[in-house]
Amino acid sequence: MVMKNITILGSTGSIGTNALKVIQANPHKYRCIGLAAGKNIELLIKQINAFHPKVVCVLDEKLASELNNQLKDRFNPKVFYGTEGFIHLATLDEVDTVISAMTGAAGLLPTYEAVKTGKNIALANKEAIVMAGSIIMAEAKEQGISILPVDSEHSAIFQSLQGHPREDIRRVILTASGGPFKDLSIDELGRVTPAQALNHPNWDMGKKVTIDSATLMNKGLEAIEAKWFFNLDMDQISILIHPQSIVHSMVEYKDGSIIAQLGIPDMIIPISYTLSYPHHEENNLPPLALDQMGALTFEKPDLEKFRCLGLALKAAEIGGSMTTVLNGANEIAVEAFLGGKIGFLDIPGLIEKTMEAHQKQAIDNLETVLASDRWARDKAREVLNKWM
Amino acid sequence: MVMKNITILGSTGSIGTNALKVIQANPHKYRCIGLAAGKNIELLIKQINAFHPKVVCVLDEKLASELNNQLKDRFNPKVFYGTEGFIHLATLDEVDTVISAMTGAAGLLPTYEAVKTGKNIALANKEAIVMAGSIIMAEAKEQGISILPVDSEHSAIFQSLQGHPREDIRRVILTASGGPFKDLSIDELGRVTPAQALNHPNWDMGKKVTIDSATLMNKGLEAIEAKWFFNLDMDQISILIHPQSIVHSMVEYKDGSIIAQLGIPDMIIPISYTLSYPHHEENNLPPLALDQMGALTFEKPDLEKFRCLGLALKAAEIGGSMTTVLNGANEIAVEAFLGGKIGFLDIPGLIEKTMEAHQKQAIDNLETVLASDRWARDKAREVLNKWM
Repeated sequence: MVMKNITILGSTGSIGTNALKVIQANPHKYRCIGLAAGKNIELLIKQINAFHPKVVCVLDEKLASELNNQLKDRFNPKVFYGTEGFIHLATLDEVDTVISAMTGAAGLLPTYEAVKTGKNIALANKEAIVMAGSIIMAEAKEQGISILPVDSEHSAIFQSLQGHPREDIRRVILTASGGPFKDLSIDELGRVTPAQALNHPNWDMGKKVTIDSATLMNKGLEAIEAKWFFNLDMDQISILIHPQSIVHSMVEYKDGSIIAQLGIPDMIIPISYTLSYPHHEENNLPPLALDQMGALTFEKPDLEKFRCLGLALKAAEIGGSMTTVLNGANEIAVEAFLGGKIGFLDIPGLIEKTMEAHQKQAIDNLETVLASDRWARDKAREVLNKWM
Repeated sequence: MVMKNITILGSTGSIGTNALKVIQANPHKYRCIGLAAGKNIELLIKQINAFHPKVVCVLDEKLASELNNQLKDRFNPKVFYGTEGFIHLATLDEVDTVISAMTGAAGLLPTYEAVKTGKNIALANKEAIVMAGSIIMAEAKEQGISILPVDSEHSAIFQSLQGHPREDIRRVILTASGGPFKDLSIDELGRVTPAQALNHPNWDMGKKVTIDSATLMNKGLEAIEAKWFFNLDMDQISILIHPQSIVHSMVEYKDGSIIAQLGIPDMIIPISYTLSYPHHEENNLPPLALDQMGALTFEKPDLEKFRCLGLALKAAEIGGSMTTVLNGANEIAVEAFLGGKIGFLDIPGLIEKTMEAHQKQAIDNLETVLASDRWARDKAREVLNKWM
């Protein structure tokens, strides 16, 4: 078995720390070459001491010199910063696999550069695919590398596709926990506070993802991601609310047979699978005890209450730059909600207004993507300022 | 696409008639060469007129001449009878695939001969594998042919194994509807009548299988079948009661990931998969609407109430001729119950007494299997007669 050399983009986030657990449990298989964090220097230093990466990266120059100061007399990785630094770590010659786990649009460039230099990708950064799926997937095909999904839903689909002919897919069924507000009325949704929204039931995640999960935007982004990952039409993607988060997603074939992947809600399983694929690797997790849990239920999502989901599906149908605009506007809206500037139900409102103002463009290079992203953020801020 | 030539052993049973629906829906892919029935000449004649097989077979000489008389002036297949006839149909040169769907031990010899002449097998006749799994699977390996499971549970496991390394299996989880008497007390079970037992909730099946399903012997036989089909140890086989019969079975891998196959309870799906494998073939069945059904639940089976299941697992652990004895004694016990000679709870009692009287033998040829089967039936009848 050949040692896999790994860079983690976003090592201090929830995906990053779980990925490090997998690496730690398999020191004979995986070696940590690069660790890229944002601002959490304290945790990064702990990771440096535990995993001895050759290079690390932080968000900006100031954080980099702070880190350099604190690293005196310890293990001494080279310290980089900013987008250039992230790209450097993602494209190092000796790196085989890049775990792309930065949140938001920031992960797009380093992920794309990693693909271009022929790295295999374990992709958690769904915004990269939502913004530039066509470009990234085309480049991955060109390079002959694989992009394996880290998201539990896409991992479930990927696992459910193994050994079954792609042309026999009727549709995929993405499951969604429904978030903490599944059963609230519209009025109650209007009064939801950031603190309430950050209290998500099933998974331990970052703030941005947690809000996306509460608005169901997360599921919309995942639907777009699924379209690119698995080369599907949008009408081949269904969404079912499954509050127990045990069935992580499913694939329905032409004969009506559905293959599903189930498991305890722990990110170790899908992260590990991206590294050990096609193998399933031992871990210390308890098995899923189906007989000890309540019933598994499934229901259709309520698109009237959770308008973000409908907007995402609509953006995907429009195509081109519209999903980039959706994503950019969503990041601004979530930020505004977390900052107390807008209410929970204003999130879809802000996104919708931004989308309505957008003239769709074809996406054939990364510049168009980045320009659309900038346009969306500027427009969303403009709409936001008019509201305030 | 090459036309597949097919013999159906047991064409008038529930598997056989469903298999004919699959063939009828795909006349450009499948051709019916041989149809073997038991006593149901009326239905066989309808099938002959619809499918124009070259050869047919019935249980005995009397039925054969009756059939020949009734076939005058119609399509004229050659008519065979008895074990020799079944073997003839199963081993015809032009046949590619044999659907082995006779119930009970009668299917063993023709199935084995089909394997020996290099036919691919779609296997529904679980007794053949329970009695002679080691011999049949060894011969299949020797011949390089595939034995694909027709049972919905084993088809689910087989589908859940595609594309995942065999060495990564932790265990398989066979699901069971629990039968119609899942929630009865021991006392109530003691008073169950054949008429009640034949009223099974989820599947349309023959009488023998319906009783086996009510006693959970069916699940025990399936566990033994799974052992041989998938080369498992008995401790890698778990059983969960799942009354909704939607999750048809599952495979748990080393990382805790579970792959499951779900579908509406219709045998068309697994039967069709044995013929179209690795493809999933269109049919006219309604899709599984997970959002329109109640909750899916799972519980451990009650081995105190359903002793047949425990006896089957025990027989499999003992190995050798003991599973053959289990199966033979079960056939006698079910017959006695259906004939009103013994009560529902006497079924496991009769099997257990027969097993206790048996000295396990190694199974290395079919003669030993058949001798053990005869011994078991004689012994079970002897025990039965002492009771009466």
